[in-house]
Amino acid sequence: MQNYLSKKAVGISPYTAGAQPKEKNIIKLNTNENPYPPSPKTLQAYENFDAKKLRLYPRPDGGELRKTIAEIFKLHESYVFCGNGSDEVLGFAYDAFFDKDIMFPNITYSFFPVWADLFDITYNLLPLNANFTIPIDKLKAPGGIVLANPNAPTGIALSLDDVQKVLKNNKDCVVIVDEAYGAFGAQSAAPLVPEYENLLIVNTLSKSHSLAGLRIGYALGQPHLIDGLVRIKDSFNSYPIDSIAQCVAAAALRDKEYYSGIAKKIMATRESTKKRLEDLGYSVLPSCSNFLFVTHKSKKAADIKKYLEENKIFVRHFNAPLISDYLRISIGTDEQMDTLIQKLTKFEG
Amino acid sequence: MQNYLSKKAVGISPYTAGAQPKEKNIIKLNTNENPYPPSPKTLQAYENFDAKKLRLYPRPDGGELRKTIAEIFKLHESYVFCGNGSDEVLGFAYDAFFDKDIMFPNITYSFFPVWADLFDITYNLLPLNANFTIPIDKLKAPGGIVLANPNAPTGIALSLDDVQKVLKNNKDCVVIVDEAYGAFGAQSAAPLVPEYENLLIVNTLSKSHSLAGLRIGYALGQPHLIDGLVRIKDSFNSYPIDSIAQCVAAAALRDKEYYSGIAKKIMATRESTKKRLEDLGYSVLPSCSNFLFVTHKSKKAADIKKYLEENKIFVRHFNAPLISDYLRISIGTDEQMDTLIQKLTKFEG
Repeated sequence: MQNYLSKKAVGISPYTAGAQPKEKNIIKLNTNENPYPPSPKTLQAYENFDAKKLRLYPRPDGGELRKTIAEIFKLHESYVFCGNGSDEVLGFAYDAFFDKDIMFPNITYSFFPVWADLFDITYNLLPLNANFTIPIDKLKAPGGIVLANPNAPTGIALSLDDVQKVLKNNKDCVVIVDEAYGAFGAQSAAPLVPEYENLLIVNTLSKSHSLAGLRIGYALGQPHLIDGLVRIKDSFNSYPIDSIAQCVAAAALRDKEYYSGIAKKIMATRESTKKRLEDLGYSVLPSCSNFLFVTHKSKKAADIKKYLEENKIFVRHFNAPLISDYLRISIGTDEQMDTLIQKLTKFEG
Repeated sequence: MQNYLSKKAVGISPYTAGAQPKEKNIIKLNTNENPYPPSPKTLQAYENFDAKKLRLYPRPDGGELRKTIAEIFKLHESYVFCGNGSDEVLGFAYDAFFDKDIMFPNITYSFFPVWADLFDITYNLLPLNANFTIPIDKLKAPGGIVLANPNAPTGIALSLDDVQKVLKNNKDCVVIVDEAYGAFGAQSAAPLVPEYENLLIVNTLSKSHSLAGLRIGYALGQPHLIDGLVRIKDSFNSYPIDSIAQCVAAAALRDKEYYSGIAKKIMATRESTKKRLEDLGYSVLPSCSNFLFVTHKSKKAADIKKYLEENKIFVRHFNAPLISDYLRISIGTDEQMDTLIQKLTKFEG
């Protein structure tokens, strides 16, 4: 048969998302979903939404959602961009700001190199230090910087001072800071937006607001950057966020109390789980996210993962250089983590 | 200030979507939305959806929606791709199948050249005949063909024989047939999918299923083409359709009776409106869509549009070569069209 695919479609290596097992009664700690449901006020917004309105196109800019985000961050709406999950927002950002010679760490969100390939942007990988921290003074490139804070899959956060160093060291290009896990203990760089014309912050409601199923991401940046994102969006898909999602996500963002409450609960569970894992012989990186990145003193990560799956617990293993001995374990409820620890204790034999 | 945008973001001319006026009590005939609400069964599916599930990621392939589309078209699931509106699906298709030298008519959906520019794909425009039909034998290109059937903004449909001619004349490249308006009287090329390895059909639920606000599009094609779309999607945004949309859109597609009923109603309103407009001195192209493309014997299109807007009726005018004398009028309810005709009669003076 004729090959009908473009050179790009043939050549690219797509991102591999975490598995979505179909079995019931599993403990799913492999894709960093929030173990708690959306807040009652969020669910109420869903119920109150008039589905007859779906007849009409949604607001192309996110409408009420964009307005709500602006209010929360005390920014003008022209500083806010909304998209279909932070992945779409990050994809648009690569296309809007980068031509070539960008840089990101060699261990980070594994979608970062995929977008570079998709948009044909050359990149350099900055090797992390042996303890998985980022050698911040070396994070310098003429074409652009991409940074996850906290980093994934390590969970290690940068200080705001370090983020400022990166912004100052790369004044002539855009620095994207992906704060997908920022709600679980890292300092957000959002207050720096009015000061730095090269800063674009990207965030998602998937983890912090228990809304992975709703596909909402956003960016904060000065209007010249937001305009760039809009130019790319409007050249690809004018209306990426449906009307329901605009309404429900706005309600979630307004319910700060509930979501900061569950974030605190997750952080407490994370710290107690860390301690219990260390007692079992695991090394655990210091995490400011809703997951832990762990390695066992003697057992292979792939073996632990396999054993856990046999016990209906799913965690993530990246079969990649430097981290193949590690597992990424999402933080579930206290009960789920109890079961995890029980099973791992049993595995110690 | 430093220019932080990529060459592409600076150089591109984004698509301009129809206006979404914020005033209430207007008659909105400018973006081809369906004047009837989603069906009771569709609204029931919305109500029945458990919003607590939003905590988890959606199925990356559309899940139940993909399955439902496959069943409706009596195809295996591997022949179906789901995306965030047909615009996203079309964007992915350009990126997945085209490198250079594609062709589409000079008058067609005005997003077609924008995607070509976005993905840096060279294209030739095929001039339409004087009566706005497509000179089908000349629709030939080495790199790919994009075709809207019915065409937009003319509303004129091709026969299935003509579509087959295009497929046979372009055996070595992909032919995309955008059937966004196909529910209103054109013949779908869906039955040709098993026979033609170069055919990709793209469709949307925005118009036919009164779900413009939900953002659901899909493609039908042989598995080697669907694989190409998946490769691009997974290199950009793994989960473009939220869980609610997957569930509600599937319910809508299953409710064939309701939606074919409102399509028939719209077609009847279209034909009576066409006659009344002709009586008023308009030339009206033969339409197989949910809009009419009209020109007045003496009045300027821009003037008619302005007058209608002053009377709270919104229609679309494309200020582009060859069609600047025309207006595209979406088909509303009979009552809305009565008001339109009343106002236009008054405008005749």
